[in-house]
Amino acid sequence: MTHIGTRMSSIPPVARVKSGETVSFDCLDASNGQVTPATVATSLRTLDIATLDQVNGPIYIEDAQPGDTLQVDILEVSTAEWGWTGILPGFGLLADEFPTPSLKIWDLPAGQDFAWFDKLKGIKIPLRPFAGEMGVALAEKGPHSTIPPYSTGGNIDTKHLTKGTTLYLPIQVEGALYSTGDGHAAQGDGEVCGTAIETPMKTTVRLTVLKDKSHVKTPHFSTPSVSEDPKGYYCTTGVRPDIREAARDAVRHMITVLMVEHDLSREEAYMLCSVAGDLRMHEVVDMPNYVIGMMMPKSIFGHKSV
Amino acid sequence: MTHIGTRMSSIPPVARVKSGETVSFDCLDASNGQVTPATVATSLRTLDIATLDQVNGPIYIEDAQPGDTLQVDILEVSTAEWGWTGILPGFGLLADEFPTPSLKIWDLPAGQDFAWFDKLKGIKIPLRPFAGEMGVALAEKGPHSTIPPYSTGGNIDTKHLTKGTTLYLPIQVEGALYSTGDGHAAQGDGEVCGTAIETPMKTTVRLTVLKDKSHVKTPHFSTPSVSEDPKGYYCTTGVRPDIREAARDAVRHMITVLMVEHDLSREEAYMLCSVAGDLRMHEVVDMPNYVIGMMMPKSIFGHKSV
Repeated sequence: MTHIGTRMSSIPPVARVKSGETVSFDCLDASNGQVTPATVATSLRTLDIATLDQVNGPIYIEDAQPGDTLQVDILEVSTAEWGWTGILPGFGLLADEFPTPSLKIWDLPAGQDFAWFDKLKGIKIPLRPFAGEMGVALAEKGPHSTIPPYSTGGNIDTKHLTKGTTLYLPIQVEGALYSTGDGHAAQGDGEVCGTAIETPMKTTVRLTVLKDKSHVKTPHFSTPSVSEDPKGYYCTTGVRPDIREAARDAVRHMITVLMVEHDLSREEAYMLCSVAGDLRMHEVVDMPNYVIGMMMPKSIFGHKSV
Repeated sequence: MTHIGTRMSSIPPVARVKSGETVSFDCLDASNGQVTPATVATSLRTLDIATLDQVNGPIYIEDAQPGDTLQVDILEVSTAEWGWTGILPGFGLLADEFPTPSLKIWDLPAGQDFAWFDKLKGIKIPLRPFAGEMGVALAEKGPHSTIPPYSTGGNIDTKHLTKGTTLYLPIQVEGALYSTGDGHAAQGDGEVCGTAIETPMKTTVRLTVLKDKSHVKTPHFSTPSVSEDPKGYYCTTGVRPDIREAARDAVRHMITVLMVEHDLSREEAYMLCSVAGDLRMHEVVDMPNYVIGMMMPKSIFGHKSV
């Protein structure tokens, strides 16, 4: 099912299911098909923003009432055999410092659990596909853009929502009205350049209405693993009186490390941070300064140590 | 060596070492010995704040010049056989919501790699000791409080700085002037209630001056592991247009989960978030809303699933 539109309770459901049933989705990428393997960077300037991050749905789940919780068991996520990462002007944590569009097209061969970032340098990214968009309708009348996330989910872009993870969403309208989209083959915590490895995606979820978890007021999830890197992490930090500025500094410092120690261009480094680096909040209480870290898994660099 | 004072370049070194030498420290806890296993919560109101987070040092490292980098290899960290976690009025990410002091005293028996949080409920915390304070002197004239962290380190309270990790600090003054302290037996990313499992600590580090890593402008580190929980994580999120408010919401929601699903008091839940929960920045680019997660390792709950 490929209904496209903003997620709002007034959009008629494309399907109705019973609680506990599984549903499969076949989704375009976040550009709504505007980016293809043949696209060049300059084309990103003329993307039709209004159709970005479209979702498939909504699915009406019988018995779902406001105040209930939707349990979304993520059973399958698979990607197309290609993907893209872009720096889009005006978008991303360092948008003011990266005004020029950049685009990277990835090969994602079937059956291969990593993608080459730079084969010559031996840099490769482990693939952990997930849907960036998973959400139910807001009670508040729309239309609501599908670009920001909400308390009911949506574009939460959370890398941990891989196969085997269970997501819990607070239901605000009758039928819940679940939608999904925005396939990602890999992403770090933060998605700092604004895009992950974006890709068309097929996904299957089981949708179950819970009556006894009404304390869920924002997305919760239970995941079997954070996929720790077997070689550990190299971390840069930002130490600032503002969390966002500290996070921006941590990313800037990792970009510098990747340029100086791994011979990447500035744009390549920013994209690598987005698809593989994790932003973690090491310390948020020793005022006036916060410590935010960008943690880069070491095994992506192959033979070279960091 | 147990020199106590604020870290500033005008404090005479307590020892001088050559680059590459190891140094051992025997440190009081962050309360400077004011909290003991016999302390009661109400005493936290009268702590002498001026002596909190004192450090041992400074150590003068020969050949260290401004612009160099200090490599700190963390060789050993061991704790006393007790520790404490406190909610101190005016301190912590939810300080405005927790005005009353609370105190928990922990048993940390030698040779045991976990501490009971609640034996009856089967809740236990894996111990991963580290020094909350690790830093070198600022060039800027002081005095500088040792409570906030700086670009040269200090109270960075970063849980990943365990044995086997290497920390890199930018040197701003001749001799670097390294100090350490603030033993923590365990802490989550964030240290959200303002304290970890605070404990007296012995630590040994190797201090090496690097001349070829001058791009290090804030603390960097290389760690072999983030100690992924074998059972995975339960995560609550905050979805807000302000990162700090999103983080506060994520913690509030985890407190609710711990109260409703694990029968903890509100204060116990807040302290458990601080010693075991990790704040991670899932999404920082889908404006206007950020998604911040508090991830709680599942195995701390023993037999009970989450």
